[in-house]
Amino acid sequence: MSYKVAIRSFKTLTYVGSYKKLRDRPVPYYCAALLGAGIVTYNQYKQNKYRAEAKEIMQLRNYMAEPITPISQLEKTQDDMKAQMEMLIMRIQAEFCRALEKEEDEAWNDEKTEDEYDYENDIFLPSPEAKFKVDRWTRKEGGGGITCVLQDGRVFEKAGVNISVVSGKLPPAAVQQMKSRGKNFENKELPFFAAGVSAVIHPRNPMVPTIHFNYRYFEVEDKNEVHWWFGGGTDLTPYYLNEEDAIHFHMTLKHACDAHDASYYEKFKKWCDDYFHIPHRGERRGVGGIFFDDVDQPNQQSAFEFVTSCAEAVIPSYLPIVQKHKDDAYGYYERQWQLLRRGRYVEFNLIYDRGTKFGLHTPEARYESILMSLPLNAKWEYMHEPKPNSPEAKLMQVLKVPRDWLLIQKSKSSTT
Amino acid sequence: MSYKVAIRSFKTLTYVGSYKKLRDRPVPYYCAALLGAGIVTYNQYKQNKYRAEAKEIMQLRNYMAEPITPISQLEKTQDDMKAQMEMLIMRIQAEFCRALEKEEDEAWNDEKTEDEYDYENDIFLPSPEAKFKVDRWTRKEGGGGITCVLQDGRVFEKAGVNISVVSGKLPPAAVQQMKSRGKNFENKELPFFAAGVSAVIHPRNPMVPTIHFNYRYFEVEDKNEVHWWFGGGTDLTPYYLNEEDAIHFHMTLKHACDAHDASYYEKFKKWCDDYFHIPHRGERRGVGGIFFDDVDQPNQQSAFEFVTSCAEAVIPSYLPIVQKHKDDAYGYYERQWQLLRRGRYVEFNLIYDRGTKFGLHTPEARYESILMSLPLNAKWEYMHEPKPNSPEAKLMQVLKVPRDWLLIQKSKSSTT
Repeated sequence: MSYKVAIRSFKTLTYVGSYKKLRDRPVPYYCAALLGAGIVTYNQYKQNKYRAEAKEIMQLRNYMAEPITPISQLEKTQDDMKAQMEMLIMRIQAEFCRALEKEEDEAWNDEKTEDEYDYENDIFLPSPEAKFKVDRWTRKEGGGGITCVLQDGRVFEKAGVNISVVSGKLPPAAVQQMKSRGKNFENKELPFFAAGVSAVIHPRNPMVPTIHFNYRYFEVEDKNEVHWWFGGGTDLTPYYLNEEDAIHFHMTLKHACDAHDASYYEKFKKWCDDYFHIPHRGERRGVGGIFFDDVDQPNQQSAFEFVTSCAEAVIPSYLPIVQKHKDDAYGYYERQWQLLRRGRYVEFNLIYDRGTKFGLHTPEARYESILMSLPLNAKWEYMHEPKPNSPEAKLMQVLKVPRDWLLIQKSKSSTT
Repeated sequence: MSYKVAIRSFKTLTYVGSYKKLRDRPVPYYCAALLGAGIVTYNQYKQNKYRAEAKEIMQLRNYMAEPITPISQLEKTQDDMKAQMEMLIMRIQAEFCRALEKEEDEAWNDEKTEDEYDYENDIFLPSPEAKFKVDRWTRKEGGGGITCVLQDGRVFEKAGVNISVVSGKLPPAAVQQMKSRGKNFENKELPFFAAGVSAVIHPRNPMVPTIHFNYRYFEVEDKNEVHWWFGGGTDLTPYYLNEEDAIHFHMTLKHACDAHDASYYEKFKKWCDDYFHIPHRGERRGVGGIFFDDVDQPNQQSAFEFVTSCAEAVIPSYLPIVQKHKDDAYGYYERQWQLLRRGRYVEFNLIYDRGTKFGLHTPEARYESILMSLPLNAKWEYMHEPKPNSPEAKLMQVLKVPRDWLLIQKSKSSTT
C-alpha cells in the first residue's frame, strides 16, 4: 500500500467511525458528537500532523448513509481492496451529491432563474428545496447499496447517484458474459464481489449537458484464485454543442489519465466513442469522454489510484459547465429538442447498455436503482430531422463522427 | 380458395388496379380517373352483380399508398398467400387509418373538446387537421413498407400504423431465433418472406387506452420445402381501468376467435398475458387481449381467414372505447400518471419485445418504422407508487394479476 493511499484509507475510516456515532441521533446528540469529534480531531491532528484531516472530519456528516459493509469489518480489513473501494465510492457519492445540492440551493436563492423560466410552456413544479432522497437497501444474497435521487429541482430535472457493494455467486449466464469479454473462467457459478458508484445527471436547462459516470471494482474467484479488475468511465451528452465545454471536459479527464499512464486517455477515449453508440441510428450518445472495462495493470494499488483520479475528476470536469450555462436563455423549441435527445438516451440505456441489461436480467435486482438513469421526461417524434445548419444539426455532426477534441491524432501526425 | 376469399381477393385487386391509375396525378386527372372508375364500376356491377362493389371501389382512394409488390404481379399471383396477405394488410391499414382520422375530424369540428382542454398544464400544439403522414419505403434486399403516422392530434397524441412486405435471406441469427421457438431449420441463411401490419395508438386523453395490434405471415424455405405460419395479436393498455371496456374488448376478440376454433380465445388470451410481461417490474403491460406466434392449422386458407377475422375485429373492439372516453374530464395528475405508464410501455418495447429487438438488430432495418410504437411523451419518476385504493392502484392490481375478463375459468369450474 502506498503512502498516499494509506493516508486516504485512514482518513476515510476516521469519518466512517465517527459517522456511526452521529447517525440517527437527535440534534443535542449531534452537537455532543460534533464536540467529541472535534476533540478527537484535535488529538489526531497533534498526533499525525495531517492538516487536511480536521477539515475532512467535519465533512463526515456529508456521507449519504451508513456504509453497506459493517464499520467494524471495514476497520479490520482496511488493507483489502474491497474495503478501500467501498470507502472511495462512499466519498465520491457524498461529494458529488453535495456539490449538486449546492447548485440547487443557490438557484433557490437566486431570483434570476425563477424570472426567466417560461412556466406556461412546460410542466415545472420544483420543490422549494431540492434535496437528494436517500434509499439504503440490502440484498438477500449479500450486500446492498445507497441510491440517491433528486427530482424536479431548479437546476437538475433528475439526478441519480448510486453506489452498490454486492457479493454472492455469479450466475452462469453472467460468467458466460465475462468469458465473451476475454475472461477465461469455468462455466459454472462463481463467488464474486462488486463495488461501484454510478450517476446520471439530467439538468433542466437544455444548454447544460447530461453527465454519466461509473467506477467499479470486480473480484471473481475461480479455481481458488481471485481475479480482480476495475472498470469505469465518464461521458458527456450535450443537447447543444459548445466546443469549449467539450474541450474542457476532455482535458480534465486527460489530466486524470496522464498522471497514471500516458497511453490511457487516447485508448479510453476511443473505447468510450465505441461503447456509447446507438447502432440503429448510426450516432453516438454524446461527445464521449473515457471508458474502460478491464484495468488490472500495472498492479492493484496503482489501478485503484488511477480509478480514484478519474472519479475525483468528475466534479471539476462537469460543475464549471453547469455553472456557466444553468441560467442560459432557452425556449419551447430548445426544450423539445432536449426531450427528443433524452429519448435517444433511453434507447441507448434500454437497448444497448450492458450494465442496464445485465442488471435487469439479474434476479433480485433493484430495478429502481438501475432505471434511475432514465430521464424524468422523454419524447419520440416520428422522422424528426434538425434543420440544415441549425444548432441541432451542428450537434448531430459530432454525434455521427466523433471528434478528436484535444487534437491528439493531429499532433501525432505532425510530429511524425 | 373458398368462395368468400375469392370474392375478397377479386375486390381488392380491383381497387389496386384503379389505385395505380389515380396515384400521383393532378386534380383534373383525378376527376377523369374517377369518372373512368365510375364507368368501370358500373360495368363490373352489371357483370358481377355484387352490389357491395360499387361502394367498395369508391373506397379505393383510401389506400394509404401503392402496394409494395407491383400490381401486375399481385394480379398474376392472386391465389398465392403472399399476395392475399399483402392485400389484406393494405386494406386493414387503410380502414384503420381512416377510422382514426374520422375521429380527429370530428374533434376538430367539436368545440367541446377544445373548451375542456387544460392548455396551461400541458404541451399541446395540435395541427388544425391531424392527418396521417404516409411514407412508402423500399428495402435494398427486397420489398418495403408503408408507414403511416399521425402526431399531435386532438384525440390521438401519436398513432402509428405500419405495413411491411419483405423478402430475402434470413440471417443465421434470425434462423437461430426461429429454432429456439421450436422450428427445426438448418442453421444457415434461408430464403424468407414476411408480410404484416402493426399499429400502436397512443390517445391524448388518459381515460382512453392505448391499443396495439400486429398480424403477420411468414414463409421460410428450407431443404426445398416452404414452411409457413401466421402470427399476431391485439392488446389493450389502459391508464385507468374501466372494467366494462375491458370486457367489451375481450368479448369482441373472443367472437373473432370463436368463429374459427372454440379453443383459440382461451389459449391466445393466456399467451398474451404471458408475452406482454415486464419481468423486472412484475407487471403486465396492460389488460391483455390475444397473442399467437405459430398458427399453421388446420390449413393455410382457414388460418388466413382466422387472421382476417382478428384484424377485422380491431376497429369494433377499440373505436367504441375511444368514442366513449375521448371527452372525459381529466387534469394534470391523470396526465402525469399516463406519462409514467407510457414509460413502462417504452421499457417493454425496448427491453423485451421480440419484434422490436429483432427489427433493430436487422441490418438495413427502417428504425423509424420500428420505433413509431414509442409514445410522443414518456416519464420516469424514481420510486413512484400509486396511493392505496386510488384509481391508479386499482389498475396496478389487474396488471400484477391478469384477470379472467370473460369468466372462462369460472364457468368451466362451475360446469365440472
